[in-house]
Formats: sequence, structure tokens, C-alpha cells
Amino acid sequence: MSAATEFDRHIDVSPLGDGRFAVELDAGWAVGAGLNGGYQLSVVGNAIRAAFPQQPDPIVVSAYYLGPAQAGPATVEVTPRRAGRTVTVGADLRQGEDVRLTVLATYGDLAAQPDAVATTAEPLVLPPREECRPNSEAPAAIRTLAPLIDRFEMLFHPDQAGWFGGEPTGRGEISAWFRLKDGRQPDPIALLTVLDALPPVTFELGRPGWAPTIELTAHVRALPAPGWLRVRHVTRNIAGDMFEEDCEVWDSADRLVAQSRQLARLPR
Amino acid sequence: MSAATEFDRHIDVSPLGDGRFAVELDAGWAVGAGLNGGYQLSVVGNAIRAAFPQQPDPIVVSAYYLGPAQAGPATVEVTPRRAGRTVTVGADLRQGEDVRLTVLATYGDLAAQPDAVATTAEPLVLPPREECRPNSEAPAAIRTLAPLIDRFEMLFHPDQAGWFGGEPTGRGEISAWFRLKDGRQPDPIALLTVLDALPPVTFELGRPGWAPTIELTAHVRALPAPGWLRVRHVTRNIAGDMFEEDCEVWDSADRLVAQSRQLARLPR
Repeated sequence: MSAATEFDRHIDVSPLGDGRFAVELDAGWAVGAGLNGGYQLSVVGNAIRAAFPQQPDPIVVSAYYLGPAQAGPATVEVTPRRAGRTVTVGADLRQGEDVRLTVLATYGDLAAQPDAVATTAEPLVLPPREECRPNSEAPAAIRTLAPLIDRFEMLFHPDQAGWFGGEPTGRGEISAWFRLKDGRQPDPIALLTVLDALPPVTFELGRPGWAPTIELTAHVRALPAPGWLRVRHVTRNIAGDMFEEDCEVWDSADRLVAQSRQLARLPR
Repeated sequence: MSAATEFDRHIDVSPLGDGRFAVELDAGWAVGAGLNGGYQLSVVGNAIRAAFPQQPDPIVVSAYYLGPAQAGPATVEVTPRRAGRTVTVGADLRQGEDVRLTVLATYGDLAAQPDAVATTAEPLVLPPREECRPNSEAPAAIRTLAPLIDRFEMLFHPDQAGWFGGEPTGRGEISAWFRLKDGRQPDPIALLTVLDALPPVTFELGRPGWAPTIELTAHVRALPAPGWLRVRHVTRNIAGDMFEEDCEVWDSADRLVAQSRQLARLPR
């Protein structure tokens, strides 16, 4: 594989045989006490793609985060569960004796899907990019907590960016223009990162800490067109020290290419 | 276990040791070519509860449906993946050599959760029950396709019940008052059935066939109060012969007790 971009190098997998892959998790994706969950999911997702090249695309992936991953070597073990026109697998991301992330996933070939689209969701409307707040201006404390933010160009909706100035809106919604800084164009594997890349909506609820994901399920519904993506995170149910966060990703062709819902712990 | 109600008898599990349980899947939950996915999930969920009685409640469960389950004997095999204040497990529902359903789940004790609730979702408002359309009046063809409908009392929102008369609204939304017909009060295990009990939203889109679930992830966020539940199914993204369906369940105390999102295949 030609690993031309930084993102491709950081998610690269080396086959060890029997569905096992060696990976090197990169420190550039740190957030809080571990590595970003979306990045981990792209690494695991890339290993599943390598194990089943005839079904290259994640269609649905459910990720359970068992412990914080650290920069350094890791292995991914892919276990087939059912094969057909689509393939369903389990996969574990392991460091030493510990499983950091366990996944169930169904993969297929998005390019082979029927073209008919009857989506009723309205495309996400954001102000022009020059009116949005770039992540390069995010508070230093947040960039220290989440160095991964520098992997992206994010231009935040100015009405949902109170956390930039310590004046959160109190509404559980954050949205932004998004692309990978290294010029890597979006594909289904990268979308797994995009779905968990923005700061958690709790930033706008006045809780600007790390919000560990318990579980995240991603649906990838179409091959994304090149260019800027638009991403929105919303929460509606905050209770019992947990919150759900829905994410949707729209591509430059106004297609709803990915959706996710995660359950996360509220920051302390 | 005293299995007083029909529902309790139908989800009853008998320990075989080593995390394995014997179950008898009941024909009363048939839909299309198999058994209802929500019912299967309650069976598996009940086995996980039996394996970890200190963490009795599903908090998040992700279910991948690998093949249609049939009435008759089956086994559930529960594999611990991480133990702590919550427990994360894998579980398989097996009949003969075939796994029908594989699950990842995190369980805990919902009664021990902090009380603080900051949910912003608005409680689901339905017309008074006497103005709604009871499932007992659903078309015969649909009751033949889905005999499980007779396990429930469902009172459908009259503005979203065009499918009763062959005049679907064309909008991807169906909601209803809901309770189990046998008088069994809701609990977290029963909620796993409730989240997949209504007809698919595709009924209101003019496609009244069986919509096989590929994957369903359920969040159970609180112990439900006794009494009638209110349930809403919505879809926003229909593409590539698949659709996502979000479900929310509100209890009689106006609490959002459960949410799910599933990815399903469009009926042919």
C-alpha cells in the first residue's frame, strides 16, 4: 500500500497472518488519558478492510472502548462471523495483554449499492467558512488536552462556539466544516475518525473535559465526495452521568454519508 | 425464578455452566421468515443478566443479526470482556451450528446511577389513547406477516397510521402507546423488545413488508416506571436499499428511558 498521507501512515496495518495485523498507534492522536476513539476505529477499520478486500467498506461498526489506548505498537485481530454479499466480523485492538477496543462490524462494497436515495434529512447548513471559528484559535488548555485537534482543519459554527471564549451556549450542539489537514480526501475508513473528531457537545454545556466514549456505532451510507465535510454533534439525553451524542456527516455533494450515535461519560 | 407472565416464560434461561444458557424460543414472536429481533435481544439480555446478577441492567447493547432465528431450542453463550463497576460482554444466540445473533453489551446497575437528569428532548406527545388506532384493528395481511403483534397492546398515532387503510402518509414516522398484553410491567430487559416491536417506519412509506434488521444498538438510560410507554420510530436516511430507524421510549413518568438506532434493509 502506498501510504502517501500522514493519515494513511498512521492507520497503516501489516498482516501477521490468520487475520492478525500489526499497527503502530501514533501519539499525535492523544486526547485526555488515551488516544482518540475515532482514530482507533479507523485503525481497526483499516485492518478489517485488509482482511476482506472484496468488502472494503464499513457499513455499520459498533465499538466498545474497554481501556485507554497508548501510542506505540498494537495488534488487531479480525474474526469472521458471517460471510456473504456482506461480511460480519469481530475485531479486537490489543496492546500487550489488554484489549483496548472491541468491535462488531458489517462490511460491504458501497460502490456496488443501488443509487436510489430517498433521504428526508435536510442537508446541514453552516455559515460560510470565513465566518466560522477555526480550531487553530481554540483555547490553549483545550489544545493541550486534545493534541489531536491539530490533525484537522475545523471551522466551527460561530453560534455554537461559546467554548472558545469560556462562555458556552448551554445547548448540546456543535457543528463545523471539516477536513484532514494533510490533504487526505475522505473515504469510509476516514469517516470513522470524522464521526468522533469534534470536541464533545459537553463543551457547549460548560463541561470542557474529556468525555470517554463507552460505545459508538457508526453507519457509513455512501462513498463521500472529495472536499470539505460538514459535521454536527447533538445530545438530547443527559442522565446518570452519561450522555448520548448523535453525529451526522454531510459531504460536498450534499449527501448524508455517515451517522453515528455514541454513549459517553460526562466529564467530571 | 418465578416466571409469572408469558413474557417472562418466553425469555426464561436455564444455566448450563461456563456462561452458557439453554433457552426455548417461542413461536409467538414470529415475523417474516424468523423471530422478532427485539424478542431475541431480550432473551440474550436476560442471559447476560443471569450471568452477571450484580450488574443486572443493559446500559448499551449492540446486536448484529446473522440469520433468522426459528422457534425451538437455542443456547446463549456469554463471554466476559471486561469487569469493573460495569461489565462488558460478548454473547451469541446459537441454534445448532448457526449463530443467529451476536451481541456486544455493557451492563450495570441503573438503580445505583446518580439522579441528575438534564435531558433536553421533549417528551413524546400522543393523542389520548381512545383517539388512537389499536393494533387489534391492523390489516389481516400484516397480522399474518407479524403474529408477534398480538403480544402487545399498541395504540397508534392516528396521523401516522395510514398503513391501516392502505394509504401510507409517505412520512417516515410511526408512534404509539405501548404495553405488553400479558400485564408484564416494563423493565430494562423488556425495553429491548419494546425498541423493536412497532412495525417498521417503511409501513408509512408504502413498503409494508418485512424489514430485516442488520444491526441495532440500544441504550437503556433509566429504570422505567410502571404503566403505558410511548414509543416513536423515525427514519431520515434511506439509501442503498437500507434505512436507519431511530426509536425512543418514554415512560409514564415522562422519562426518556431508552433509545435505539438500527440499520435495516428496505422491504422488497
